[in-house]
Amino acid sequence: MDYSTMKPSEVRKLIRDEKITSPTAGMCDGYAQANLVILPKDLAYDFLLFAQRNPKSCPILEVSDVGNRKLKYLGEDIDITTDIPKYRVYEDGVLTCECTDISHLWRQDFVSFLIGCSFSFEGELLEAQVPIRHIEDKSNVPMYITNIDCIPAGVFNGKMVVSMRPLSYDKIVKSVLVTGAMPKVHGAPVHIGDPSIIGIKDINKPDFGDAVAIKHGEVPVFWACGVTPQAVVMNVKPIIAITHAPGHMLITDIKNIDLKY
Amino acid sequence: MDYSTMKPSEVRKLIRDEKITSPTAGMCDGYAQANLVILPKDLAYDFLLFAQRNPKSCPILEVSDVGNRKLKYLGEDIDITTDIPKYRVYEDGVLTCECTDISHLWRQDFVSFLIGCSFSFEGELLEAQVPIRHIEDKSNVPMYITNIDCIPAGVFNGKMVVSMRPLSYDKIVKSVLVTGAMPKVHGAPVHIGDPSIIGIKDINKPDFGDAVAIKHGEVPVFWACGVTPQAVVMNVKPIIAITHAPGHMLITDIKNIDLKY
Repeated sequence: MDYSTMKPSEVRKLIRDEKITSPTAGMCDGYAQANLVILPKDLAYDFLLFAQRNPKSCPILEVSDVGNRKLKYLGEDIDITTDIPKYRVYEDGVLTCECTDISHLWRQDFVSFLIGCSFSFEGELLEAQVPIRHIEDKSNVPMYITNIDCIPAGVFNGKMVVSMRPLSYDKIVKSVLVTGAMPKVHGAPVHIGDPSIIGIKDINKPDFGDAVAIKHGEVPVFWACGVTPQAVVMNVKPIIAITHAPGHMLITDIKNIDLKY
Repeated sequence: MDYSTMKPSEVRKLIRDEKITSPTAGMCDGYAQANLVILPKDLAYDFLLFAQRNPKSCPILEVSDVGNRKLKYLGEDIDITTDIPKYRVYEDGVLTCECTDISHLWRQDFVSFLIGCSFSFEGELLEAQVPIRHIEDKSNVPMYITNIDCIPAGVFNGKMVVSMRPLSYDKIVKSVLVTGAMPKVHGAPVHIGDPSIIGIKDINKPDFGDAVAIKHGEVPVFWACGVTPQAVVMNVKPIIAITHAPGHMLITDIKNIDLKY
C-alpha cells in the first residue's frame, strides 16, 4: 500500500488496528505530523509555561483537556492512546516499556501535549527545491546538545537540542524564509555556520541520529529540535511520562500549509 | 516633557514615582506596550491554556514566575506592582478599586500575564503609510463583541472581542501583510468587510471605545482584541484579578520590530 497518498484518518485507522507499527515518515503527504508528550496534570502548568517561553524548541499544536484521550483540533476522532504506532513509557525517568497501545495506562489526570515536528518544514523545503541530506541518505537527522540554555519554567530547564541540515550557500536565505514562515513547527534556524559557537565540539558526532556529510561549499544550518522538550522532561524524572517512539508520530488532519497562518 | 522620545526605563521610573498617571499612548516611540492580567495561581493553568488556544486574542509576551513581581524578559528592573500608571482591581468580578500602585495587594500566589497590544501593530501600519482613523480622531479604537466563540479552556470561555479600523481598498492587502507579520501582537485581521458576518449588528455602536466614520470607498477591517481575555476572565468572577486600566499599559524594553521574530 502507498501510505503517502492516503488520508490521515485512513492511516490512523490502520495504526489503531496495529496494521501499521512502523515510523510515519513519508505517510500522508502534505499533512502535519506531531510529537507527543503526556504528563500528569501536576506538571502540566510548568510544561505549558516552558513551551510559552521556548516556542522554537517546543511549538505546541494542541493541549488536550485533562483526562481526555480525544483531541479537538488536530483531527477528527483521534484517540491519543491508540493512534500513534509506537509509544515509550518512562517511569521516574527510566524507559520501562515500548508499546503500540497505552489505553491500559491511561489516567484521569493525564494531559497530552502535541508538538510541531520538523517533517512539516522539511516538506516545504523540498517543495522549494532545497535538498535535505539525511532524506537523500535515508538516515535520521543529526541532532546535537548545544550550550544554549532554554529559558527555565518551574521545574523544567536544560540545554537546547538542535537538528542540522547542511545547505549550499545559495539555499541558505531561502531556507530561513521558508521555515521562518512556519513558527508552529520550530520556525527559522537558530544558528547558521560554525558549530563551535553553539557548543558543538564535533559535527561528525551527533548526540542523536546519524552523521551526514557536509560537502565542499556547504554550511551547517541548525534548527531548534523537538527532542529538547523530551530531554527537559526526562531531567525531572516524572513519576510517569509517555512519549511517541522516535519517528513514530501522530498524523494529523492539519495541512502543513495551514501551519503558516 | 516629550515622552515619545524617552527610553522605556526613564518613563517607567516616572510612572513608578507617580509623576505619570495618564494613558501611555504615544510614549517611547518604537517600543512595545503590554496589557496586564494578574490572577491567582489556581487559575493560571486554565488562562495559559486559553492563551495557547486563542493566540490571536491573547498573544502572551511574558508570564511571570509565581509570586514574583519582577519580569525577566520584557525589561530590566520592572516591578509589575508599580510600573503601570493605573490598575484596576476586581474582586468576585466587581471593580473595587482603581489605583496607581498595587504593592499592598500583592500575594505570593499571583501570576502576571503580559499580553501583546495593538499599539505595536498600529505603529507599524503608520510607518507603512496606512492611516488609522481613531488616531486621526484622537479617540479610542471602536471594539465589538462578536459571535465568534473563543476556544474554551478549563473555566474560561466567551466570545471574541474585535477592534475595527476602516481602510480604503488599496490599503487592505498591505494591512494584512504588515499585521500578519506580527503574530505576537494579535497578527492578521480576523475579518474584512460586512460586520454582520461576525455578529455585529450596528457598526456605529461599538460595545467599547468610540465610533469612527467609515467613509465612501472604505471597508471595516477587524482584528482580535486584547479586551477578549479580560472579558473572559471577568466571566469567571475570580476572587481577585488585577488588570491595567484601559490605555494605561506597561511600556516594555522590547522594540516593536523585534516582535516579528
